[in-house]
Amino acid sequence: MKLYDLELSGNAYRVRLMLSLLGLKAELQTVNLMQGEQRQEWFLKLNPRGQVPVLDDDGTVIWDSLAILVYLARKYGGERWLPSEAKDLAEVMQWLALMENETLYGLGKARVILKFKLPGSLEEAQTLGRRGLNVLEARLAGHDWLALDRFTIADVGCFPYVALAQEGDISLDPYPAVRKWVDRVKQQPGFVSMPGI
Amino acid sequence: MKLYDLELSGNAYRVRLMLSLLGLKAELQTVNLMQGEQRQEWFLKLNPRGQVPVLDDDGTVIWDSLAILVYLARKYGGERWLPSEAKDLAEVMQWLALMENETLYGLGKARVILKFKLPGSLEEAQTLGRRGLNVLEARLAGHDWLALDRFTIADVGCFPYVALAQEGDISLDPYPAVRKWVDRVKQQPGFVSMPGI
Repeated sequence: MKLYDLELSGNAYRVRLMLSLLGLKAELQTVNLMQGEQRQEWFLKLNPRGQVPVLDDDGTVIWDSLAILVYLARKYGGERWLPSEAKDLAEVMQWLALMENETLYGLGKARVILKFKLPGSLEEAQTLGRRGLNVLEARLAGHDWLALDRFTIADVGCFPYVALAQEGDISLDPYPAVRKWVDRVKQQPGFVSMPGI
Repeated sequence: MKLYDLELSGNAYRVRLMLSLLGLKAELQTVNLMQGEQRQEWFLKLNPRGQVPVLDDDGTVIWDSLAILVYLARKYGGERWLPSEAKDLAEVMQWLALMENETLYGLGKARVILKFKLPGSLEEAQTLGRRGLNVLEARLAGHDWLALDRFTIADVGCFPYVALAQEGDISLDPYPAVRKWVDRVKQQPGFVSMPGI
């Protein structure tokens, strides 16, 4: 298994975390975004969107961290991580949708604006990010985990940009249940970290 | 079945389209966003994010259009719309991730900035939207459908904001394969439209 990766990408870290939680090993190949490697023809053949992460599992190529989480959970993790039944599956998907919206375009975007000087409105991103944290806080005040009262890919998906929020100048101080959940994720067997967490 | 809905929301339309394709009927209850109904306590109990659509299927409440598509497909549609096997499932998920990114924050955002005067950078949204259209064009130049060479929730998911692109002042003229795909979706049994499409 090979992961086209970038150490500082929260989206790529999400996959490294999932691989580790499942006890899977993948060769990591860094894609040099500063040198525009993601826009080179060989990489666009793997992922037409020109983004990390991309997983190559013995010739099965999957792009996008949401799709890769779902793939790994279904293929190597089973029902525990991603249920098959409609209602339970939808409950996990709700939080993965929040991951793609409030955490990625809120918390994650605030981080790349500040840390990597990418364009965009910091205030707009922080507002969206805090709106997401409010929703997470309300859920986690009464539950240990985001979906199904167990650790699933919903948690793995949302974790990176929440745990990196301070790099987008968003304090987690007003969100005590979120902070406890971050600690809870860190205590799971197989947890691996990344710079900034 | 009840759908908390807004006629002009592409995210809500995505669910109305899926319901119709599956031959399902739902009572539509309009949530008056102009009057802030989505921020009222009764609605936040249904969806802590304060957004339409929300589906109530005989007491099972699902928020977020991605989660609702997955729910409806799994519960009422079967393998045809959303496969169970890891690789096929991931192929569908890849395009649903593009729906949450390039089409929602690109095409969809350009539309709400122009049509509903919401804040944000029009140029940034249009650039992201066109990047998504390029990826769709490349795929659809060689395939009738986005995933698995059949009509799935990947197509249903991406369709609304692509078909509404001109409302964000993004022409589909440079994307002939995308335009043919839009026509193909419109010809599917059970297709329903919305204002602007």
